[in-house]
Amino acid sequence: MQETVTIIKIGGQILDNESKLALFLEQFVQLPGKKILVHGGGKLATTLAEKMGVQQQMVDGRRITDSETLRIVTMVYAGYINKNLVASLNAQGCSSIGLCGADGSLIIAHKRQHPTIDFGWVGDIDSVNGQLLSSLLLQALTPVIAPITADTTGQLLNTNADTVAASLATALSANYSVQLVYAFERSGVLRNLEDADSVIPHIHFAMYQQLLQEKIIADGMIPKLENAFATLAGGAHKIMIGNALQLSDLLQGHAGTTLTYE
Amino acid sequence: MQETVTIIKIGGQILDNESKLALFLEQFVQLPGKKILVHGGGKLATTLAEKMGVQQQMVDGRRITDSETLRIVTMVYAGYINKNLVASLNAQGCSSIGLCGADGSLIIAHKRQHPTIDFGWVGDIDSVNGQLLSSLLLQALTPVIAPITADTTGQLLNTNADTVAASLATALSANYSVQLVYAFERSGVLRNLEDADSVIPHIHFAMYQQLLQEKIIADGMIPKLENAFATLAGGAHKIMIGNALQLSDLLQGHAGTTLTYE
Repeated sequence: MQETVTIIKIGGQILDNESKLALFLEQFVQLPGKKILVHGGGKLATTLAEKMGVQQQMVDGRRITDSETLRIVTMVYAGYINKNLVASLNAQGCSSIGLCGADGSLIIAHKRQHPTIDFGWVGDIDSVNGQLLSSLLLQALTPVIAPITADTTGQLLNTNADTVAASLATALSANYSVQLVYAFERSGVLRNLEDADSVIPHIHFAMYQQLLQEKIIADGMIPKLENAFATLAGGAHKIMIGNALQLSDLLQGHAGTTLTYE
Repeated sequence: MQETVTIIKIGGQILDNESKLALFLEQFVQLPGKKILVHGGGKLATTLAEKMGVQQQMVDGRRITDSETLRIVTMVYAGYINKNLVASLNAQGCSSIGLCGADGSLIIAHKRQHPTIDFGWVGDIDSVNGQLLSSLLLQALTPVIAPITADTTGQLLNTNADTVAASLATALSANYSVQLVYAFERSGVLRNLEDADSVIPHIHFAMYQQLLQEKIIADGMIPKLENAFATLAGGAHKIMIGNALQLSDLLQGHAGTTLTYE
């Protein structure tokens, strides 16, 4: 049987709330076994951009990463947030090392190509250095990963943190049984958006397709689930979606939504 | 015979000059053997503080690291500068990993205690995780180190980059023959400050004491040399001081000042 690695991706809203973040980290520290934390950004990058007078450019509702914005997200994600998470985890006895995709060529990406929109310095992932991750895990270190990657010319790129987590899961699936947790402020995939108690506890691929047809899954959740099933198809064992403050229950299937391929 | 590790600390003025930095990095990539790059900050932190309206507090000519300044140096040193250096080195075939002192508890420090001045979030170093460094070096990775450390409670601390380089040198001296290079904009230790050609090629400890007595060594250089001789006493093999753009000549003793204990 393969050893389990748990990859947890935390959303921005947990990072923005000091007391919730502290609660989450306490639970994360308690998790047994090999684990990896992937984090996004939260509001700090936006606040900093405002303070510096950097205008956020949006095209079709998507944020464009111009040079100044890339500098800000690199500072905030790979610097401030990453190093504070690492220092806090180490202080709680969870030996952690903070990396971004550029470190040890952990994640090689390329600038996003799109027929009509120039997204700026946004990266789409080409490859993951699973050997480096395995080596750190074998040294009993918990990698804490910021979603900044680099291309082969040394250009840093802003990359979606959900996709980073999924790519790490796929890369590690060759040698480990990988469970991936998308931990955010909601309690899971809801059957009825108006009813927080309508969490669907388990979805497999055939059921997902049926839920899609019945239009039960809301727009915002569709890309998340689509990526999740692609990651399961790529070898990940299971994926959990749910509240970051119920980490232990999520992992045991007592809360949130568990996704499996079959 | 012990294997050699070369630790190079680059000063801020090289980091501020894109073309000089590129020239330095080209030379750094060419250096044979195990190596570590330690970097300071440059002007970017000051520029960012100005943009954000954060006042720099000075006491007795020394910068005080208040909470906002700590946030800025963490973002700039451990984020922006560190990750850009790493991405650039990787693109040139020098497989690098960027860390600050918090990562893997690489450098444990404590908040500086002083009878009359509160320096703010400034760290003095207690210990270095030489095992982590050795393990990265054995994986053919070049650690790129930002001078942000953490204490045992998870508080990040701003730490002098020269001291970080010296502490790494001392820690690695147990297992390696360590040479430490302070690479900056000047050509070495000068006999006559007015004459850039008056570089003293070699200084040993007895000679250093004599130069001090004769008041030949200028004020600014005294703490650098004092720390350097303490590092040599702690086990480092030799220390070179000189121009960052003459890296190969510095290492061969054809340029700059070489310090040895005897």
